[in-house]
Amino acid sequence: MTHDKLPLEPLFDKIEELKPRFIDRLTRAVAIKSVSADETLRPEVAKMADFLVDELTALGFVDIQKKDLGIQPPPVNDPKLPLPPVVLARSGADSSKKTVLIYGHYDVQPALIEDGWNTDPFVLTHDTVKDILYGRGSTDDKGPVMGWLNVIEAHRQLGWELPVNIVCCFEGMEESGSVGLPELIAQEAKKYFSTVDATCISDNYWLGTRKPVLTYGLRGVHYYEIVVSGPAADLHSGIFGGMVGEPMTDLVKVMGSLVDSQGRIQIPGIAEMVAPLTDEEDKLYDPIDYSIDDLNDATGAKISLHDNKKDALKHRWRYPSLSLHGIEGGFSAPGAKTVIPARVSGKFSIRTVPNIEPRKLDQLVVDFCNEQFAKLGSVNTLKAQLIHDGNYWVSNPFNDNFTAAAKATVDVWNIEPDFTREGGSIPITLSFEQELGKDVLLLPMGRGDDGAHSINEKLDMSNYINGCKTLGAYLHYYAKQ
Amino acid sequence: MTHDKLPLEPLFDKIEELKPRFIDRLTRAVAIKSVSADETLRPEVAKMADFLVDELTALGFVDIQKKDLGIQPPPVNDPKLPLPPVVLARSGADSSKKTVLIYGHYDVQPALIEDGWNTDPFVLTHDTVKDILYGRGSTDDKGPVMGWLNVIEAHRQLGWELPVNIVCCFEGMEESGSVGLPELIAQEAKKYFSTVDATCISDNYWLGTRKPVLTYGLRGVHYYEIVVSGPAADLHSGIFGGMVGEPMTDLVKVMGSLVDSQGRIQIPGIAEMVAPLTDEEDKLYDPIDYSIDDLNDATGAKISLHDNKKDALKHRWRYPSLSLHGIEGGFSAPGAKTVIPARVSGKFSIRTVPNIEPRKLDQLVVDFCNEQFAKLGSVNTLKAQLIHDGNYWVSNPFNDNFTAAAKATVDVWNIEPDFTREGGSIPITLSFEQELGKDVLLLPMGRGDDGAHSINEKLDMSNYINGCKTLGAYLHYYAKQ
Ligand SMILES: [Zn+2]
Ligand SMILES: [Zn+2]
Ligand SMILES: [Zn+2]
Ligand SMILES: [Zn+2]
Repeated sequence: MTHDKLPLEPLFDKIEELKPRFIDRLTRAVAIKSVSADETLRPEVAKMADFLVDELTALGFVDIQKKDLGIQPPPVNDPKLPLPPVVLARSGADSSKKTVLIYGHYDVQPALIEDGWNTDPFVLTHDTVKDILYGRGSTDDKGPVMGWLNVIEAHRQLGWELPVNIVCCFEGMEESGSVGLPELIAQEAKKYFSTVDATCISDNYWLGTRKPVLTYGLRGVHYYEIVVSGPAADLHSGIFGGMVGEPMTDLVKVMGSLVDSQGRIQIPGIAEMVAPLTDEEDKLYDPIDYSIDDLNDATGAKISLHDNKKDALKHRWRYPSLSLHGIEGGFSAPGAKTVIPARVSGKFSIRTVPNIEPRKLDQLVVDFCNEQFAKLGSVNTLKAQLIHDGNYWVSNPFNDNFTAAAKATVDVWNIEPDFTREGGSIPITLSFEQELGKDVLLLPMGRGDDGAHSINEKLDMSNYINGCKTLGAYLHYYAKQ
Repeated sequence: MTHDKLPLEPLFDKIEELKPRFIDRLTRAVAIKSVSADETLRPEVAKMADFLVDELTALGFVDIQKKDLGIQPPPVNDPKLPLPPVVLARSGADSSKKTVLIYGHYDVQPALIEDGWNTDPFVLTHDTVKDILYGRGSTDDKGPVMGWLNVIEAHRQLGWELPVNIVCCFEGMEESGSVGLPELIAQEAKKYFSTVDATCISDNYWLGTRKPVLTYGLRGVHYYEIVVSGPAADLHSGIFGGMVGEPMTDLVKVMGSLVDSQGRIQIPGIAEMVAPLTDEEDKLYDPIDYSIDDLNDATGAKISLHDNKKDALKHRWRYPSLSLHGIEGGFSAPGAKTVIPARVSGKFSIRTVPNIEPRKLDQLVVDFCNEQFAKLGSVNTLKAQLIHDGNYWVSNPFNDNFTAAAKATVDVWNIEPDFTREGGSIPITLSFEQELGKDVLLLPMGRGDDGAHSINEKLDMSNYINGCKTLGAYLHYYAKQ
């Protein structure tokens, strides 16, 4: 892609110049232990919201609100535990400009140095040899959130007007299920968010470590349970083995019928719903920086079902998959207990993609389980049901939002980004798209090896600084699309 | 069966007369909390051994020994925990008489009134309306052990000589795996037990509640584990689902291939090893007091694989069965975790019968698992192996030992006993038979609903008193065979 470059060098230079301030900002953010999963740290999460309010105020944001989401619903230890607020803020209200909604989260995953961190997780530590910043939240998601603030600061110091109006939506419960946020988005869609033209979320990662990506799709997930019931209580296999139908026998047969060892779903009707691969989409896979070796490195074993990058990634991103997660109710301890379990349940899930119809999928799955069970001629009873679902999301990677981000990436990194999807789901993406009716872009800052939820979470300095440049350039290109 | 009755009425009358003393003996035995599974109660187990020594001494037994079995091997909390002794004693050394070895155990299952007992489990409680004795150990196995002592006491009070020499072998670890006993039997086979002609074990139950039985067979058990390994660590199904081979998929397929929902083992070569059913054996099933309704009552559901008593019992006793016990390593908790387990193991066992060759069975099973796995074309690895086994036991129900017991049963209960087997294993039976090279008889005292290992364990008074008569009469008939 070649494009008419905007004159953004002064912005990029200013970002380089402000690097010490930006490191300081991230250091102060990381120091706040805003772990949403730890009830005892809820005051720290609140403190992090206040930190953002102070920063936003200093940067000239207006209409700053801490949206109260009420009390956290069970299960909680403290029945009066307040949910962290959603911080809303806006910069600019120029009706001649487009408005971009920026989403990020200010809570982080738990972290204890005893878990194996090389440094204090809540002290941002600069490894000056590798030029890497270590700390909890450095990449997920305090780095990107500070990135947006850094962009604003650079503009102010340059005396530049922002090319778009900005609306911030920063939540403090992302690592704990985004409780309350979907409702808030729905409530504010025609109010605080009424002028939004596009949403940009910087809360995922490059596919690998070498090449920037833009993410245009997420698979959905439908989670199912099969329960097989027989006797009123567990039986002793010495006494009853051979005389009675055993629920575990039926369950493994039904579960074994769902998918083959090559990962091919055996339930008829699902493959037919999958959107055909277009040439245009297929071409997106050609340049992607990924290999089967990368997959083998990630799994620590040679268990790839495909011998080439493109097939592997398509099965990760644009085809459905079915995983069996486990069986409950049986004997699953050390030793040799001779039990016939009375009631066993199996759990499995299907990753969904366009154009799988959710309710039709559920019907196909439940019908198939019932049919397979009927074939067994069992004396027991089976019940299969959906227990949880979240829909897939896919965007047009050639729309204005993505095109702007692609141009920004080329300017900063001097390379075309890979267009990727993610195999897992980020439900809030769909909430923004559906409630606001506007395009959503996933524009990651960090790399695939940042260890977002692991020990020694990190953000490469180049990703932090170039990430700030990319976020800033994106706003300028989007303003011109 | 008609037989020349021996003149045992005086013995039976004496037993009736001594009933208060026999209840008192069992009361004193039940009061001792000889729970072998509870390390803190080990002194009570030792006290129970002393109780037996005192009783045996008072009844004129000689050569009484408390055989030290040393320290209990791990896992234990107290590394110096002594094993309960095996109590040996003999009565009579008349080389013109046969010698019968009597086995019983003086330890009991744990019991707490909080578990739901209607009465204190360690206070033998006589429900005079139902004429039932309640208490831990009443039927398993203090009732039968006291029964043998009662028989000796009745003979002494009558001034009768015992018709056989008796060797007692009472252990205190039966409920905890009979640790050390097989080695002791082997050691004493040519010493303390050298003159033994037959063994009688009274430590099982009638099939039902109405008809006495003699037990001539026990199935064995071979316990297997299948482990399927793939990635180095658990993977997220959103990221890797569709790209990699999943161990759980392979495991349920292999486990699902082992047996069908009608309980038919699918591993070739096993059925061929099963001893053919003879007419004589088949006829043993005709009179047995059992019905499919009894099975449904026991399981609390209509899950019988057979529509008639004979087929059901044959599959419980004389045909092998295969039960899948559970799967370990997967997700088996509430909720909807989207994990691809890295390593999963499945456990199953086969109940064995004559003439299944143990090592050939293991080879067939392991080969079959490997073949089924090979058919899957999986990228993962599978290992199937035996982790525990115990052999089946079957006796000739028409031998002198059983014939004597059958005659005794007819005299006492006025009905032919049913000849039954048990679906489960009692490994010590095989130890006695193999080490001593003599016939073993299982001659139960209690009923099928006694709740041996449950709350409210009981022994009907009629079973206790008629049981004593049966044990006594058995000795007399065995002496004449
Ligand atoms: Zn995040
Ligand atoms: Zn996260
Ligand atoms: Zn017992
Ligand atoms: Zn027992």
